[in-house]
Amino acid sequence: MPEHVDSTTRPAPVTIIGLGAMGTALAAAFLAAGHPTTVWNRSPAKVEALVARGALRAGSAADAVAASELVIACVLDYPALHEILDDAATDTLAGRTLVNLTNGLPTQARDTAAWAAKHDIAYLDGGIMAVPPMVATPAAFLLYSGPRDVLAAHRATLGVLGEVHHLGEDPGSAALHDLALLTGMYGMFAGILQAFALVDSEGVSAASLAPLLSRWLTDMASSVDFYAHKIDSGDHDSDVVSPLAMQATGLANLAQAGRDQGVDVELLAPLYDLMRRRVADGHGQGDVSGLFELIKRGSATG
Amino acid sequence: MPEHVDSTTRPAPVTIIGLGAMGTALAAAFLAAGHPTTVWNRSPAKVEALVARGALRAGSAADAVAASELVIACVLDYPALHEILDDAATDTLAGRTLVNLTNGLPTQARDTAAWAAKHDIAYLDGGIMAVPPMVATPAAFLLYSGPRDVLAAHRATLGVLGEVHHLGEDPGSAALHDLALLTGMYGMFAGILQAFALVDSEGVSAASLAPLLSRWLTDMASSVDFYAHKIDSGDHDSDVVSPLAMQATGLANLAQAGRDQGVDVELLAPLYDLMRRRVADGHGQGDVSGLFELIKRGSATG
Repeated sequence: MPEHVDSTTRPAPVTIIGLGAMGTALAAAFLAAGHPTTVWNRSPAKVEALVARGALRAGSAADAVAASELVIACVLDYPALHEILDDAATDTLAGRTLVNLTNGLPTQARDTAAWAAKHDIAYLDGGIMAVPPMVATPAAFLLYSGPRDVLAAHRATLGVLGEVHHLGEDPGSAALHDLALLTGMYGMFAGILQAFALVDSEGVSAASLAPLLSRWLTDMASSVDFYAHKIDSGDHDSDVVSPLAMQATGLANLAQAGRDQGVDVELLAPLYDLMRRRVADGHGQGDVSGLFELIKRGSATG
Repeated sequence: MPEHVDSTTRPAPVTIIGLGAMGTALAAAFLAAGHPTTVWNRSPAKVEALVARGALRAGSAADAVAASELVIACVLDYPALHEILDDAATDTLAGRTLVNLTNGLPTQARDTAAWAAKHDIAYLDGGIMAVPPMVATPAAFLLYSGPRDVLAAHRATLGVLGEVHHLGEDPGSAALHDLALLTGMYGMFAGILQAFALVDSEGVSAASLAPLLSRWLTDMASSVDFYAHKIDSGDHDSDVVSPLAMQATGLANLAQAGRDQGVDVELLAPLYDLMRRRVADGHGQGDVSGLFELIKRGSATG
């Protein structure tokens, strides 16, 4: 039994709406932690495997909602959520808690919070910072935004899925942070793909680069705090680790290596364009964090 | 005294050519480890601070080379290296070892190795995977390519700078891997900058996102091995963690969030274009690693 569950209390019932890869992982985590777990999915095929592992089948979204005080939704997008929560399900949700872990925009999260308030539904919006196999492992963490007391009431149950981070009462905050972290990940993926393509062009396998690359990226991930400080202060020109003008030499090498090796190195072209613009703006001795000034809100050049 | 130095042997003399931020960090590391360290730089201003810390001043590049059996160069680029190593310095290098840690292309490294062989100079090409403040810390590692016996003869001395990785006898291999790791880092930087810009648009400071972002990127860096396996096997359609078609929903959210928030989200546009192409090619249920097939050597569509 997980540490956080008081051994004198029975694990609370929970309902999962949406059984894609992620919803299935959520339901499996609650089942493994001993929670009575009711599941519902628009296409019923996904339900069978979970029922075989002890999940309770609901006949409708309203029945699923009726089974638990805590209802967790993880569907394709917000419009899908609102289709699934038909009138009967919405009426049944009144007085209960909906935790929406569906990917979406801050504005969608805020609109859904307003809809929930109108229907007397306690609402938390959230983001899962994990791929499905990571759910309920120590590496997983989840972002939540919405009323602090609602989160407190369900913190032990939600803790089954991964570390709980509350980002404040604004219901849009979790979606905003989720999108930001995803964009960080996509940047890293672009770099990883480009790195593998470069060594592949000389017959070096991805597996032989991988240990060096994951170590290097882990080292460099620690520079996030350093750059955050520069970005918040707006000072990119003191305490410079590697001047942009010098980095431009490295970039010219990358472009040339791409041409030499027949590899498309356009994936990071917009970054290189920003670097050239920033050097042209007179910040060649400044840090790479200065590129922030060229993309932040209100910086549009078009 | 560092563990790897036999206490009965005196630290070997070493010469550093080039005293930019990185060359200065290299010289300082050798001085700290007790190596007699001779330094030379085209503009002499950089020399003073190191001489004050115990470095030996050379009057010319040839004098610098004459002072040590091991000569380490770290200058702006390969043309600069060949300018610095004039005829006298080249003649003096005969019978000695040149370790070139200058950033460059695999072809430049190979040409320089051929030049060295012609002049009876033992040659290693290398790349420093560290920013200057990381040199000689446990986080630093360096890539070397060239003759195994040459590296073995100087391994203890070079170990002062950071962990030693030998990438084989092909002198171009270190430059190739160095460029690949740099491109990985630049991708991560693009993602980091974009992430900070997104939360900034709603008044969230970089410092408040930073702990989540560095944790998330560290978690995701561990997926490098997973994707390396897919890339080497060419099978991107089995054992899929997150289907591209589903990720496309997240990307549409990112683009919309950029418009909503007035943030330029074009930094990763080429990645999104590749994703759309891969989905259109019928790999919507496949993994993001499949984008490799669109950028690798020989995939050019233009």
